[in-house]
Amino acid sequence: MALKVVVIGGVAAGPKAAAKIKRLHPEAEVKLVEKGKFISYAGCGLPYFVSGAVKERKDLMSTPIGVVRDAAFFQKVKGVQVLMETEALEIDRAGKRVRIRRDGTESWLDYDKLVLATGAKPVVPPIPNVNLGNIFTLHGVPDAESIKAMIAQAKARQAVLIGGGLIGVETAEALIQIGCQVTLVEMLPQILRALDWELARLVEKHMAARGVKVLTHTQVIGFEGEGSVSAVVTNQGKLPADLVVLGIGVRPNVDLARAAGLTIGPTGAIQVEATQRTTDADIFAAGDCAESMDLVTGKPCYVPLGSTANKQGRVAAINACGGNDRFPGVLGSMVCRVFDYCVARTGLSEANARAAGYDVTTVIVPDADRAHYLPGAKPIILKLVIETASRKLLGAQAVGPGHGDKRMDVAATAITAGMTVDQVSKLDLCYAPPYSGALDNIIVAANVARNKLDGQVAGVTAREVKRRLDAKEDFLFLDVRSPGEHQQERLPQSTLIPLGALRSRLAEVPKDKPIIAFCKVSLRGYEAAKILQGAGFENVQVMDGGVVAWPYEKVITGV
Amino acid sequence: MALKVVVIGGVAAGPKAAAKIKRLHPEAEVKLVEKGKFISYAGCGLPYFVSGAVKERKDLMSTPIGVVRDAAFFQKVKGVQVLMETEALEIDRAGKRVRIRRDGTESWLDYDKLVLATGAKPVVPPIPNVNLGNIFTLHGVPDAESIKAMIAQAKARQAVLIGGGLIGVETAEALIQIGCQVTLVEMLPQILRALDWELARLVEKHMAARGVKVLTHTQVIGFEGEGSVSAVVTNQGKLPADLVVLGIGVRPNVDLARAAGLTIGPTGAIQVEATQRTTDADIFAAGDCAESMDLVTGKPCYVPLGSTANKQGRVAAINACGGNDRFPGVLGSMVCRVFDYCVARTGLSEANARAAGYDVTTVIVPDADRAHYLPGAKPIILKLVIETASRKLLGAQAVGPGHGDKRMDVAATAITAGMTVDQVSKLDLCYAPPYSGALDNIIVAANVARNKLDGQVAGVTAREVKRRLDAKEDFLFLDVRSPGEHQQERLPQSTLIPLGALRSRLAEVPKDKPIIAFCKVSLRGYEAAKILQGAGFENVQVMDGGVVAWPYEKVITGV
Repeated sequence: MALKVVVIGGVAAGPKAAAKIKRLHPEAEVKLVEKGKFISYAGCGLPYFVSGAVKERKDLMSTPIGVVRDAAFFQKVKGVQVLMETEALEIDRAGKRVRIRRDGTESWLDYDKLVLATGAKPVVPPIPNVNLGNIFTLHGVPDAESIKAMIAQAKARQAVLIGGGLIGVETAEALIQIGCQVTLVEMLPQILRALDWELARLVEKHMAARGVKVLTHTQVIGFEGEGSVSAVVTNQGKLPADLVVLGIGVRPNVDLARAAGLTIGPTGAIQVEATQRTTDADIFAAGDCAESMDLVTGKPCYVPLGSTANKQGRVAAINACGGNDRFPGVLGSMVCRVFDYCVARTGLSEANARAAGYDVTTVIVPDADRAHYLPGAKPIILKLVIETASRKLLGAQAVGPGHGDKRMDVAATAITAGMTVDQVSKLDLCYAPPYSGALDNIIVAANVARNKLDGQVAGVTAREVKRRLDAKEDFLFLDVRSPGEHQQERLPQSTLIPLGALRSRLAEVPKDKPIIAFCKVSLRGYEAAKILQGAGFENVQVMDGGVVAWPYEKVITGV
Repeated sequence: MALKVVVIGGVAAGPKAAAKIKRLHPEAEVKLVEKGKFISYAGCGLPYFVSGAVKERKDLMSTPIGVVRDAAFFQKVKGVQVLMETEALEIDRAGKRVRIRRDGTESWLDYDKLVLATGAKPVVPPIPNVNLGNIFTLHGVPDAESIKAMIAQAKARQAVLIGGGLIGVETAEALIQIGCQVTLVEMLPQILRALDWELARLVEKHMAARGVKVLTHTQVIGFEGEGSVSAVVTNQGKLPADLVVLGIGVRPNVDLARAAGLTIGPTGAIQVEATQRTTDADIFAAGDCAESMDLVTGKPCYVPLGSTANKQGRVAAINACGGNDRFPGVLGSMVCRVFDYCVARTGLSEANARAAGYDVTTVIVPDADRAHYLPGAKPIILKLVIETASRKLLGAQAVGPGHGDKRMDVAATAITAGMTVDQVSKLDLCYAPPYSGALDNIIVAANVARNKLDGQVAGVTAREVKRRLDAKEDFLFLDVRSPGEHQQERLPQSTLIPLGALRSRLAEVPKDKPIIAFCKVSLRGYEAAKILQGAGFENVQVMDGGVVAWPYEKVITGV
């Protein structure tokens, strides 16, 4: 008897699992059940379809050589039978069968192994009038097509995006590119909460510079409109809108699993072992419906992403075929393009790490992404989060126009391996001037962290400096940049002594006050601190990240 | 008594060590001795100075904000006393002093700790007439300026570069960009021998397409010219030349160390512990004069690079100050830009691994560097070298216009951590369509490797296929691409059955012959092999890398 496999869900994990099972067991009978009209499409590409960077819908569901991955393709090439527009209604675990509805008719599919890849659905908040026209989510192809159609017909120009997560940020870029006015509304004090506040703030500033009105601390309390939306009502006032995109997150589709008595984990997603097995040994779950393990904390987490879905689908397939593969977990690694910025992160943020009880040391190191003397060198503002006692890298974040994604992938690999910053600082990364500095950004940052951990330098965050400034504490806020740099923009209440002059102007530095040194990126700030310490000044700190990473207003004086 | 430190050598490791020592011990008396006229310059940037991408000499020796790192800078900012144009003549280990010559006068410098950062010198082969005018190395700033001057005065237009290593390849690009005719001559069967042959071949093809005449298997036996070079004489004939750049490698400067009785390692560089200590506990060596450890083989190796020099300089400084830091070793990680290609590698090549006695499995996987449906997606041809029994990643190589450097840095980190391809395949790398596919190139390649290791697919190299074709062995060379792709270019003696038609055209496939399937990148080739295996064909192999990675001539038929 051929192995009978039913796979429920046809976007990412499902097709991956189905195809892999056929490759492992060519004689298996594999049925893929999909509720919608499309399978195997790149959901993560939807913002780029909205922007027009991806020209046609079929590009999102084609192989690299342009063959559409439809039901016929799966049958012909993969040997997988796809049941489109077919809803799975019930899992009969005792009978090992799934009840489905297709063309209005119900029937049962028998299985030996079942793979649940039921995905997630966007959260639609219970806000008054949320069902008005022109209020969309951006979750499937139809959503994207509707938004495009509205804009193409010039029926929408004023977009309000609700939720400052990935979908909100990526859609903001897409809509700006096609000429909309865009407001991004976020209830929390920051967008992209996978980032720490001060880096998210830099992203917000960049978005604002590119025309997006970013409103944090703003809660949507209703919508107005006749048939179609005309305004978003928030706790900060009313925003005119003829297009609204809800991007406040997704919830795993677990109804089928729950009804079948499978255990749902603490995150609300289906609980699975590292084998992707659910609490029924013949039922696997993978992708956006399944829980993952946080590789740093060892706790269950829910991070729905296409990359993870594909990996989990493959693991489920191997184990469904009697193999032994394991998906160890995730780091919440994320990257998104935000206009000219690459915004990326992996592992624990400082906020998450502290909330989880870690004692951490952090650094913020802005630096060029390649040899600074080459045209095209672009800055990356890099943050590392390190467990103080073990010196292990726990997390990393990168914001800026430079290639931060590369550094985050290195960080993700290093965190997975449990590396300390000492180990990271010695990594033999590829070096040539068009690709990095002689010491790559992440190595420089690791060295800065080691200096802190070893007590070579005392760091202070911009946030703490701002607090002390606001509290009118008495300290010397020492800018050691050049007069030219200081002329262009400076930080409030700062005093300039250029680094090159510091050794000869020590008499000007008060002996009795705390000193906080900084420069553009705080490497000169560090040099200054070492000079001051060497000269007997005892209370010297360096501000993390310098002027570049200062998340507050600057005093713009010149040029 | 203040700690007295002498550092010999002022390019990379030396200045790094000197500055770090001052930061650790502000009261230390640190003297940096440099033979030449420049210190702390980016030697790796010289090709970009020749090409004009770097406008001015001082850009190579300036801080990111444009301050020249000269002797005055080191004194003022770092507190390091620099002795320029000063030659170190002798180390008196018993007396702990260094004899120097400066302005024609000799004197002694006392030290408590000595750091040797004497660098390397380019190999000038003992070939007749090698001292003719216009024959240069490209090792220091004066070399680069001489070459630029010759070209600027239109005294050189026909360049012959000798040696297909990094300097040869980067200089070829630089000289083409400023309008020279360029021939690259390499004695070995391939350029860039840190790569395996078939990937080096792809680089050679790309260079040829961009106008560089690449001559492998070509040995230089002499030069001709009156005063200045006019031709390079090789075993393959004579090449007219009015500019020659020798890039056949460097040798560590160890005379001073050797004369002082320090142990020179098997590689010819100064033997050091992981602490960068030489066989004299008070003398450290770092950078291009020092040996490293190969992190994979555990054997001494010599890989002079600015990145390593900086790391080793820091380690030497920390230990010279009584700290405890270690430089574990290198992977031979390398990246270079070759026109539109990024060429990168890390760890062991297949050739090196086999020579070192490893039983390896290899894969070659070409794939787009980001979501293939986005504009700007560019291919990377990725090769992994895996130890068969342990499944550990030993090495990786990437060639192509895509961002291969990112994948190599991940590979370098994974190799350092001793990861298996199974672990690599589960890495939570950052995913968004502008940055990678849902499964990053290195994850796809790791999965292909796992399929091979698990016996899911039998691979065969292009080289082996070529051998069998040349030997007129009887097998079906099965192209499963589309008719359109086949129309444009095809491999010799191949038979076309498009993948989508394969299941229905199995009758056309001979049962009694071995089959080697391939496609553009061999992912469809893999699908085809699984279909054929499922249909009972037993002798089926997939050709690694497909048409894209085929290093031989193709049959160009259409368009």
